[in-house]
Amino acid sequence: MIASNIETELAETPLAPGGPFENLTTGKALQQLYREIRAHSLALAAPLSDADATVQSMEDASPAKWHLAHTSWFFETFLLRDNRPGYQAFDDSYAYLFNSYYEAEGARHARPKRGMLTRPSLDEIRAYRAHVDNAMEQAIPDFSEKLLELVELGLHHEQQHQELLLTDILHLFSCNPLRPAYRHTSRPSLHAVEPGSMNWNTGPDGIQEIGHDGQGFAFDCEGPRHQVLLTPFAIADRPITNGEWCAFIADGGYREPRHWLSDGWAWVQAEQIDAPLYWSPADNGGWNIFGLEGDQPLEPAAPVRHLSLYEADAYASWAGARLPTEAEWEAVAQTGDLPGTGEVWEWTGSAYRPYPGFRAAEGAVGEYNGKFMSGQFVLRGGSQATSPGHVRPSYRNFFYPHQRWQFTGLRLAKDL
Amino acid sequence: MIASNIETELAETPLAPGGPFENLTTGKALQQLYREIRAHSLALAAPLSDADATVQSMEDASPAKWHLAHTSWFFETFLLRDNRPGYQAFDDSYAYLFNSYYEAEGARHARPKRGMLTRPSLDEIRAYRAHVDNAMEQAIPDFSEKLLELVELGLHHEQQHQELLLTDILHLFSCNPLRPAYRHTSRPSLHAVEPGSMNWNTGPDGIQEIGHDGQGFAFDCEGPRHQVLLTPFAIADRPITNGEWCAFIADGGYREPRHWLSDGWAWVQAEQIDAPLYWSPADNGGWNIFGLEGDQPLEPAAPVRHLSLYEADAYASWAGARLPTEAEWEAVAQTGDLPGTGEVWEWTGSAYRPYPGFRAAEGAVGEYNGKFMSGQFVLRGGSQATSPGHVRPSYRNFFYPHQRWQFTGLRLAKDL
Amino acid sequence: MIASNIETELAETPLAPGGPFENLTTGKALQQLYREIRAHSLALAAPLSDADATVQSMEDASPAKWHLAHTSWFFETFLLRDNRPGYQAFDDSYAYLFNSYYEAEGARHARPKRGMLTRPSLDEIRAYRAHVDNAMEQAIPDFSEKLLELVELGLHHEQQHQELLLTDILHLFSCNPLRPAYRHTSRPSLHAVEPGSMNWNTGPDGIQEIGHDGQGFAFDCEGPRHQVLLTPFAIADRPITNGEWCAFIADGGYREPRHWLSDGWAWVQAEQIDAPLYWSPADNGGWNIFGLEGDQPLEPAAPVRHLSLYEADAYASWAGARLPTEAEWEAVAQTGDLPGTGEVWEWTGSAYRPYPGFRAAEGAVGEYNGKFMSGQFVLRGGSQATSPGHVRPSYRNFFYPHQRWQFTGLRLAKDL
Amino acid sequence: MIASNIETELAETPLAPGGPFENLTTGKALQQLYREIRAHSLALAAPLSDADATVQSMEDASPAKWHLAHTSWFFETFLLRDNRPGYQAFDDSYAYLFNSYYEAEGARHARPKRGMLTRPSLDEIRAYRAHVDNAMEQAIPDFSEKLLELVELGLHHEQQHQELLLTDILHLFSCNPLRPAYRHTSRPSLHAVEPGSMNWNTGPDGIQEIGHDGQGFAFDCEGPRHQVLLTPFAIADRPITNGEWCAFIADGGYREPRHWLSDGWAWVQAEQIDAPLYWSPADNGGWNIFGLEGDQPLEPAAPVRHLSLYEADAYASWAGARLPTEAEWEAVAQTGDLPGTGEVWEWTGSAYRPYPGFRAAEGAVGEYNGKFMSGQFVLRGGSQATSPGHVRPSYRNFFYPHQRWQFTGLRLAKDL
Repeated sequence: MIASNIETELAETPLAPGGPFENLTTGKALQQLYREIRAHSLALAAPLSDADATVQSMEDASPAKWHLAHTSWFFETFLLRDNRPGYQAFDDSYAYLFNSYYEAEGARHARPKRGMLTRPSLDEIRAYRAHVDNAMEQAIPDFSEKLLELVELGLHHEQQHQELLLTDILHLFSCNPLRPAYRHTSRPSLHAVEPGSMNWNTGPDGIQEIGHDGQGFAFDCEGPRHQVLLTPFAIADRPITNGEWCAFIADGGYREPRHWLSDGWAWVQAEQIDAPLYWSPADNGGWNIFGLEGDQPLEPAAPVRHLSLYEADAYASWAGARLPTEAEWEAVAQTGDLPGTGEVWEWTGSAYRPYPGFRAAEGAVGEYNGKFMSGQFVLRGGSQATSPGHVRPSYRNFFYPHQRWQFTGLRLAKDL
Repeated sequence: MIASNIETELAETPLAPGGPFENLTTGKALQQLYREIRAHSLALAAPLSDADATVQSMEDASPAKWHLAHTSWFFETFLLRDNRPGYQAFDDSYAYLFNSYYEAEGARHARPKRGMLTRPSLDEIRAYRAHVDNAMEQAIPDFSEKLLELVELGLHHEQQHQELLLTDILHLFSCNPLRPAYRHTSRPSLHAVEPGSMNWNTGPDGIQEIGHDGQGFAFDCEGPRHQVLLTPFAIADRPITNGEWCAFIADGGYREPRHWLSDGWAWVQAEQIDAPLYWSPADNGGWNIFGLEGDQPLEPAAPVRHLSLYEADAYASWAGARLPTEAEWEAVAQTGDLPGTGEVWEWTGSAYRPYPGFRAAEGAVGEYNGKFMSGQFVLRGGSQATSPGHVRPSYRNFFYPHQRWQFTGLRLAKDL
Repeated sequence: MIASNIETELAETPLAPGGPFENLTTGKALQQLYREIRAHSLALAAPLSDADATVQSMEDASPAKWHLAHTSWFFETFLLRDNRPGYQAFDDSYAYLFNSYYEAEGARHARPKRGMLTRPSLDEIRAYRAHVDNAMEQAIPDFSEKLLELVELGLHHEQQHQELLLTDILHLFSCNPLRPAYRHTSRPSLHAVEPGSMNWNTGPDGIQEIGHDGQGFAFDCEGPRHQVLLTPFAIADRPITNGEWCAFIADGGYREPRHWLSDGWAWVQAEQIDAPLYWSPADNGGWNIFGLEGDQPLEPAAPVRHLSLYEADAYASWAGARLPTEAEWEAVAQTGDLPGTGEVWEWTGSAYRPYPGFRAAEGAVGEYNGKFMSGQFVLRGGSQATSPGHVRPSYRNFFYPHQRWQFTGLRLAKDL
Repeated sequence: MIASNIETELAETPLAPGGPFENLTTGKALQQLYREIRAHSLALAAPLSDADATVQSMEDASPAKWHLAHTSWFFETFLLRDNRPGYQAFDDSYAYLFNSYYEAEGARHARPKRGMLTRPSLDEIRAYRAHVDNAMEQAIPDFSEKLLELVELGLHHEQQHQELLLTDILHLFSCNPLRPAYRHTSRPSLHAVEPGSMNWNTGPDGIQEIGHDGQGFAFDCEGPRHQVLLTPFAIADRPITNGEWCAFIADGGYREPRHWLSDGWAWVQAEQIDAPLYWSPADNGGWNIFGLEGDQPLEPAAPVRHLSLYEADAYASWAGARLPTEAEWEAVAQTGDLPGTGEVWEWTGSAYRPYPGFRAAEGAVGEYNGKFMSGQFVLRGGSQATSPGHVRPSYRNFFYPHQRWQFTGLRLAKDL
């Protein structure tokens, strides 16, 4: 296991069994994986113009160009600069421009100003990536096991930014009255979500173990593996759907304070919220939902997404249920019997706090998870925008309760 | 046990053994307690002028006059109006003016505007209290057991506001360049805090029980009593002192980002924080601390107070330790072996979230604890400003991590 | 003439012929006037409680207690401290507390925090006034002519604050849902305003003289007297009335952008303005207007008041007219033929800028008018709340275009 | 003369004698001018990438792409759509995207969101321009004289946006730590500005005429031509230089409140201003100034630029002088004896208000000048970034007193 390194906005999960990170016993296998993951980032950016890749639509989001550059800066800084004497940086100014939040790495360009960087251009960033990839290609065969672990960390870090690149582009495009589509065909649902009645499955109670067990990659915050004590509970066999959300709206869910957390009610009123993010009234009286494919008519059977924790919690309250804790979720997920995961990040009722015995790593790489452990809630499971192989049952994603530009939804639980 | 009813800003604790709420088996005993607690509120307000009791120094605080009126409104509304046919309200406008946050009770005067109420005067509020007390005097003997429980709740509610009245006056006076003193003699420390080296006591591990057991009064959020699983830990035998805090400052604690939660570091920089609230440089190069007795020279052996959670957490990180969880704290406290409690509210590392099986009560009285369960951290133990008899091991106080106008401090814990 | 000394929020006018300041050829006459004006301030504060006199309802307003103290500070500082060796200040802290904006007088309590000063009490401020008055009583007979001029300035300064005391109390009381009345009988209108059709009077054109001529008191910004060139114009024989304003509202005046200055339209939308300040819908479908007498039904024939410059300008635009320039207004006013003045401060279309040859005085007393000459518009004429004798044709009052808590109205003009 | 049509941010000047707009007696001449001015806009945008042309660096600024599109929208809307039956709009969505502030033209994309428009691309906007130009090429020969006047207005409007395009790009590039240069060679100074002592020229006093006389083009706010009465004054023979500004800084000009307008002093403190915009400390202890050529060492003899009105006014106060009024400036300028004009827009001491007899035109085209006449000050003369032929003595530019991203400087005046 290794210290993690993530953006404020995301989290990640280790190798699902059979995923691409399995059996990375040799530098050679890792080198191949490096090529594939780095190529995937470029492929995600392929539909974007220079302007698309440059604009920052809100403080929470970053430009696509910045994601492409920052992930390269990670390899350049922690692998090449620190471990390859004679490595020539592509451009000395990039260390300042593309550090995200690593205080130990010195001053950096202010996050809310990332969208001011019309230069370097997208093509220059592609050249930067090629320069780094070239040096990495030569370096990986020489790396020690410890450095190979750091390469692996960098690849997981890059996968996190792949999801952010998509969610940030989606937000940017949603601000454009032309409603551009990022792509023209949807990725099919990973798991079919049945319309109609939801079923409750009984979860395991008593003493259970959760947290990453140290086999394969995981971020530091996923461990240590430890025992938890669960009281009897049931968990739904799928996430809540758009159709069910429409019933919540129709029942006045957004106008009835008693369903809401106090902070949530203040948020609903201040922001005049009356639907999930990216929902807009359709001409036929229904709803359109803006997604990577542009505006599409609401699909009642699809999992509802782009919810804040406040909305998820209010729905659960309205439905006479509650959100699962992250321990409940994981205890079920590691049995393999949690249908519908991977469609939307599922808000849990757990604040993002350290596990018993957690301790952040030393140095810059240790800054990344521990320092975000206040004010945020844990999400589990992964979404349609998550890169393949980047989820595992112990994965802890986290966001502030008002944030909803990720693919966030919910699944119900209840006490037994 | 009964549903609780508190202001955002506070929390409460059940009956300490031998405290005033013990053996409230008869309405007569409760009536006597009613008189004492109501009189105590007036005594706390005695040093205040009409103007002192009217001004609101910040949104988090309320005027003393408002506390005196709101606590009376509680009895008038939930006991007299709802259960005494023929009761004449003192003034029909007060229901609007002095409801705090009970959505189910209808529209109310906006919280940030509480300081605009120069009318009614402090004397009129005293008359309002007398009117309510008179009606209660006559009503209590007739009340059912269920209503007597509601009276008991109202008294705990009033004690919560007694502490707030003091902390809010302290904040107001701190905004006045004349630095007025609320009183001229300090309340002596409840527990002597030894200067010099702190000791670690081993806490109980394995399965433990926490939460209120239903004997005597407690707020709803203190239960249900339930099992928790604790990993081996130690806890300090006293809170951190002013002298120890000076060492943190001297070591650059406020200028070194690696000790801080990310949100905390942003707060330190935005607010230019370099000391606890109410500390100001003294002429002799040391510090003065503003308190209810005005500015006083820093006492090195006294518990440090007026800290945010961010500061408490940063100190623990700097000291190579951590904050206790609320379960750890309570598991030790219920053994009776946690010296130094009652001096300062002690920040725990636990987010304020519901216990397994928690369910809010129906109706307005049920609004009070559950809806605040996001974004806040639990504090335990009570402070010098807490009313006598208003603490118990299961008591859960809660505030946002940046708030520090309460008497908030910290105690260290560590893994074993 | 003498340098003026005013609060941001106001301006003032010299002696109307026959007013109380006339023939102040002797210290004795000035002494009598000093007593009367100082007593008038106390009389204005008589209906106020300690709390009423302490609270600051918005940044633009100041507490009544502060007005009473600041006007005394003026005499204490510029007359007693500077010119009476051996004078003992009433309290050394008051120089810090009650300086308004005189940078040359050193650090001062921040304006938005004036409402935090629950101490000193209203009674203590009354004692402060008595202390200063006592010293002034003894000092005035000894003062040189130059110092007597400074006393005179201080009295005009106090009269300005008398009007502010009333407008600030009105604003405070308007924030209280109890809608308290400051007084129970209205001051009768100074000039009857005829309902029905308004008439146009032709103003003087060509070269005219405006500005104070140096006879009697005036603030520095009223001079030098100078020539202006006026093109032919007409001016209304009275201010616009409430009834006429209702017609503007009924015609959609607040919803039609083409009547509005661009900044005004942004203000209307951001603040959701749809009526003058202090208007609220009455049960009968009409309007109530909150005033010093509490809520009163709208009087159609009374001058409309509590308008921003934006509203005044939009009305004029809607009516096919315009606001008069301050030169036009004064050229007419000095002929004595401008009926209806003194009811409301009349917005002019002139930005508050220096007259040709204006130069601020040296020292702290010179700070007061010149430095406010950006971003504000001139108002002329005086209001019901203006102290007797405190207006003259050359008087230049000034406020920012969005401000409307003064008694502000309008009179139309047009080109011929 | 014709109603003007400008952006909030700019102003304009009529035909200098011999300028390109002279002798536009035929549609043919205007057609040639149309081609030249439209081509000039494209030439200005030539150094920009798609990303450069898309990002909006602050609310006051607009993207270059937006300027290119909005100026085309003007011709498409007011000439082609309204007067060429059968004209096919290039894209129906552009009317919404590229209206600036014309309320009469309906809903529009919010100004602060102009930078979200990564689509349409810069190339698509170029295609839009070609489409409009093609239609205009065919239409101009058929246009009536009235429509030709509207074409002329559109060309002046486009020239205004040419200057804004440059100032907005300069601001954007200033936000990039790479400090990119827009161009590599400077435009030479229009007028040599002599270092060393400045001289005072006596201006014309008594009754003078200012305002546009109706010969050739002017914006509506420049008229009517009218008489003004000037008191004796002198005006400097050149703008203030960088070297002189360094002396103001060295003398503590930014730290001494008595030089400043009250609003200006608040601005200096809130924004922590200590130098003109775009000045940064150089390694040698001097200053660099960021301009269209990137960072360049300060030239002491060059006119100081990028000042707010507050700074210009404070300098004049410090220097014992004042800013000229716009009438003084124009009275001198129309004699042809005002050396150094055209280097920087010169702040005057005049608020931007209507001339006697001014009346806005009917319809959308009439919205453009009159509605901005509050809160802004007039600037005169033109700058290095102003398009050739786009200035005249009667030209009234206007900005808010805190704005300084235009090429703004000052020239002194004084009373005689």
